[in-house]
Amino acid sequence: MPKYTKTDFPVSNVRRFLEPGPIVLVSSSHKGETNIMTMGWHMIMDFVPSLIGCYIWTENHSFELIRRSRQCVINIPTEDLAATVVKIGNSSGRDIDKFDEYGLTARPGTNVRAPLIDECYASFECKIADSSLIRKYSLFVLEVVKAHVATSPKYPKTIHYRGDGEFMISGANTSKYHKLFNPGML
Amino acid sequence: MPKYTKTDFPVSNVRRFLEPGPIVLVSSSHKGETNIMTMGWHMIMDFVPSLIGCYIWTENHSFELIRRSRQCVINIPTEDLAATVVKIGNSSGRDIDKFDEYGLTARPGTNVRAPLIDECYASFECKIADSSLIRKYSLFVLEVVKAHVATSPKYPKTIHYRGDGEFMISGANTSKYHKLFNPGML
Repeated sequence: MPKYTKTDFPVSNVRRFLEPGPIVLVSSSHKGETNIMTMGWHMIMDFVPSLIGCYIWTENHSFELIRRSRQCVINIPTEDLAATVVKIGNSSGRDIDKFDEYGLTARPGTNVRAPLIDECYASFECKIADSSLIRKYSLFVLEVVKAHVATSPKYPKTIHYRGDGEFMISGANTSKYHKLFNPGML
Repeated sequence: MPKYTKTDFPVSNVRRFLEPGPIVLVSSSHKGETNIMTMGWHMIMDFVPSLIGCYIWTENHSFELIRRSRQCVINIPTEDLAATVVKIGNSSGRDIDKFDEYGLTARPGTNVRAPLIDECYASFECKIADSSLIRKYSLFVLEVVKAHVATSPKYPKTIHYRGDGEFMISGANTSKYHKLFNPGML
């Protein structure tokens, strides 16, 4: 299991880890019950406030935990956790306690009751900012209220789902196009 | 410049190329004016209909072209087009014709008037499915009505923006976790 030492990270800059499009683990807690789900459909929607749009299927056991508690944590797993990520996505919190079953460590958050997943590279504590799109689109608009990111490595090796049981693993990182940006666009 | 031979692709399966989170080029056309913008904030919202949510900043010159024509094309560029992608994102259609300026080929679409970018790996013709979230969130809900994808390579080398002028280049692709999926989840 990976182990990361995490520190505070600016909530307005979580795009650095979410915008490249990794699959994430969403942890939640409501009335003593906790759960974890995998999520591939998410997008940054604003920097300040730090908004994330994400699609959570009504059939997910986490759907009601998140909707009712109005909170969750978006955790970014790395490649070494890939098999566990798939198992989490292919089992239900109706049947098992996923933290127990998969040997994951629930660490208390600071601003939400949903637990952070210690084995993930980053954990973003979120509160529902807008629930009005849930019924029509299963779209939760979340605000990141606290971010924890590993101090190293600088670039996590993340996993990106393609559907059909296939993943893309994040590759090289480059700043070589930096000079082509207008300063105001950085 | 990359050259791709594209064929029809099922619109319900565009997630294979969008869900991993690449930066995309959005082309548009309205009343004789065409433009291209870069876009990093997008997510799959449904398979059938094939829905994509995407954030388009009001200050983008493309914003009104897309909003008024109710159409656009989402094109997926590969690494060999990265410098052009950055230049497109750092210039405005108010000042230049980006197809001309950057030597890109506008190919007519079949279901929309917005042009496909021939040098991209894939082009998804889209129509606005829901404009009700534009004012509040700059969120366009698009339906992919026609998809064109290169016949090879199977896996494009896409570019994924991290902010701060940095990109992650897509890495290895793997099916080794396929056996951990429930058949119904594939």
